Amino acid sequence: MSAVEITLTSEMQNRLGRIYEKMSEADAHALLLSDNSNIYYVAGRVFRGYIFIAAGCDPLFFVISPNNISGALVHNVRKPEMIPDILAEHGVALPSVLALEVDDLSYSDITRLSKAFGVDDIRNASAIMKEARAVKTPHEINLLKADGVRQAAAYARIPRIYKEDMTDVEFQIELERELRLEGCLGYYRTSGRSMEINLGTVLNGDNADAPTPYDFALGGGGADPSLPVGADGRTMLPGTTVMVDMCGNFNGYQTDLTRVWSIGSVPASALEMHDVAREILHTLEREALPGVPVARLYEIAMDIVRAHNLEDYFMGRSQHAPFIGHGVGIQLNELPVITPRSRHILQENMVLAIEPKFFVPGVGAVGLENTYRVTASGLECLTVAPEEIQDITQ
Amino acid sequence: MSAVEITLTSEMQNRLGRIYEKMSEADAHALLLSDNSNIYYVAGRVFRGYIFIAAGCDPLFFVISPNNISGALVHNVRKPEMIPDILAEHGVALPSVLALEVDDLSYSDITRLSKAFGVDDIRNASAIMKEARAVKTPHEINLLKADGVRQAAAYARIPRIYKEDMTDVEFQIELERELRLEGCLGYYRTSGRSMEINLGTVLNGDNADAPTPYDFALGGGGADPSLPVGADGRTMLPGTTVMVDMCGNFNGYQTDLTRVWSIGSVPASALEMHDVAREILHTLEREALPGVPVARLYEIAMDIVRAHNLEDYFMGRSQHAPFIGHGVGIQLNELPVITPRSRHILQENMVLAIEPKFFVPGVGAVGLENTYRVTASGLECLTVAPEEIQDITQ
Repeated sequence: MSAVEITLTSEMQNRLGRIYEKMSEADAHALLLSDNSNIYYVAGRVFRGYIFIAAGCDPLFFVISPNNISGALVHNVRKPEMIPDILAEHGVALPSVLALEVDDLSYSDITRLSKAFGVDDIRNASAIMKEARAVKTPHEINLLKADGVRQAAAYARIPRIYKEDMTDVEFQIELERELRLEGCLGYYRTSGRSMEINLGTVLNGDNADAPTPYDFALGGGGADPSLPVGADGRTMLPGTTVMVDMCGNFNGYQTDLTRVWSIGSVPASALEMHDVAREILHTLEREALPGVPVARLYEIAMDIVRAHNLEDYFMGRSQHAPFIGHGVGIQLNELPVITPRSRHILQENMVLAIEPKFFVPGVGAVGLENTYRVTASGLECLTVAPEEIQDITQ
Repeated sequence: MSAVEITLTSEMQNRLGRIYEKMSEADAHALLLSDNSNIYYVAGRVFRGYIFIAAGCDPLFFVISPNNISGALVHNVRKPEMIPDILAEHGVALPSVLALEVDDLSYSDITRLSKAFGVDDIRNASAIMKEARAVKTPHEINLLKADGVRQAAAYARIPRIYKEDMTDVEFQIELERELRLEGCLGYYRTSGRSMEINLGTVLNGDNADAPTPYDFALGGGGADPSLPVGADGRTMLPGTTVMVDMCGNFNGYQTDLTRVWSIGSVPASALEMHDVAREILHTLEREALPGVPVARLYEIAMDIVRAHNLEDYFMGRSQHAPFIGHGVGIQLNELPVITPRSRHILQENMVLAIEPKFFVPGVGAVGLENTYRVTASGLECLTVAPEEIQDITQ
């Protein structure tokens, strides 16, 4: 059993700096974390337990399990009720205002924690952490760049896995294998309980427009009523498209990359709509600069869609997703969300997945998705891969 | 886009009967559900929205998405705040006591719902639903039986996928593919946010004893600090075992099946411990009768372990899991949990995964896991597969 030490690295200090800033803006002096994504963000590894963060002192790590984690800032506990006494021993005054992950933890968990700490005034640590995590550190950017390279490498092998008369599920299974062999961890972290998905979505033909309960741009009906999203088991017929939007988590961070292939040739209208999606992306690559309101990105996209009279086909037809992209990092759905109502302003080193997609009735989905870093001169693409619709049968 | 109708089937009425019984025991007159597992249990499909259940009237389904669900009991809503008015239109009095899923929904969600309904007296719908779901209907048993057959069929192909000098991750990837080709949906539903896993665990050699933050009997250290569970990338060397405990979800329900293979031959001590695990299972198959306290199953197992002086190796060595099994169904971790502290009494048609496992230092994990139905004459195995340790290289 190998021991793991948690220490106050410069990377951890960078991240804590972001958290302190957002805590201050929310007027929260102390914060207690236990959501896996937030634990991973601060500690660089997932454990079961809690991290206590307060301005003016080092963070403290309260670990329930595993039992091989050590370090000067680490305390092993059996339950959260043990934390206040340990804080007192460290001369840390018990906070009267405590930020807890109210959007991530269950009602029962939050009730238990507020009782253990004797606080009535609870602030929203989920919101604080989402804001802190929205702008990535250079180390996080490097992890995301590594994801993009590996995800694109697996996608490049897609034409090789296609066989005539394959179903969309069979196709997806071979693609899952390629991603996993490339190093994909096989797990999506999402925010919110209702986002359920296996290793991604493969959307062939009209299934791309089947309504889904989940927050996906084009969801697909799925193969079973218990998991109504993605591939539905249909044979991939000539004249249709297949849109691939699979898991890009190779290291705890994840890129989001969507590409489309055609089965044989598809109508010119589909290729034209695909080109409009590319036009949207290339325009946003120039226009998305630090200081620009995120809502403006949505407006720019919609202006292009309207100029081509394609509103009815954009982001689904039976259900229109009212967004064109989202932040991505440890979780698939991070801040900012690119909607007309967003109040966020673009900042350097935000990482955005932008996904203009159209549904072409009788053909399938077209469009694409890249993951980008916001830089002073526009968007830097982290998921470089051919953008054209290629015929998968060639 | 195909429409889906939700109607009051006899199966739904069976399940509602179980829920009414548990509501009555908890003195809760009304219940509002929105957790995906509970939605699936009642409606037979996952949607985003709410189900309102009260004694004396039909359940009402409030669907946010997808938009293709219809039926006399179905109402489309945009948000939960619209529900009370619709209840009033149906002549349903707003409850002063409301059971909500406090263990499953976030603090923010519960706060929002209690405000929308104007209730202060909140009861635990999570607990009610877990108790209701603990005893399966004949239809649920049939789904679980179908899972067991398919999971065993995929496991039977395991010797075929092994290649010399394979890593545990490479082995797992090929096994994931076999399971998916057999129809596995590729998704685990678990209760509680902290259970993160991809498609299961493959534990080779000493990695079987690596501590993990998650609630697994033998967890494994994993290949990345963001997902510290399961295979860790080691080459599967001769003289070790590989324990396979992969996803058995083929239809929204899931069986739990664990088997062990050896890479070449392993020491007699490993085979002896494996036989003790089989002795535990076969004893419990006879002793686990309706009316027997669940805690007694744990005692019976521990008596056998002690008789062989194997306490130090049972259910892990670096971390001992204080349980030997659990209910299984829509979620991987249902009631009852087989621990010394369980207060549950066995009932016919409970479905239990029982998993006596040992860790043999220098060799790996041995033992096995079957999913059983409780019957009047003992346990009926739903996961019939060879129990011996087979040499995977033969």
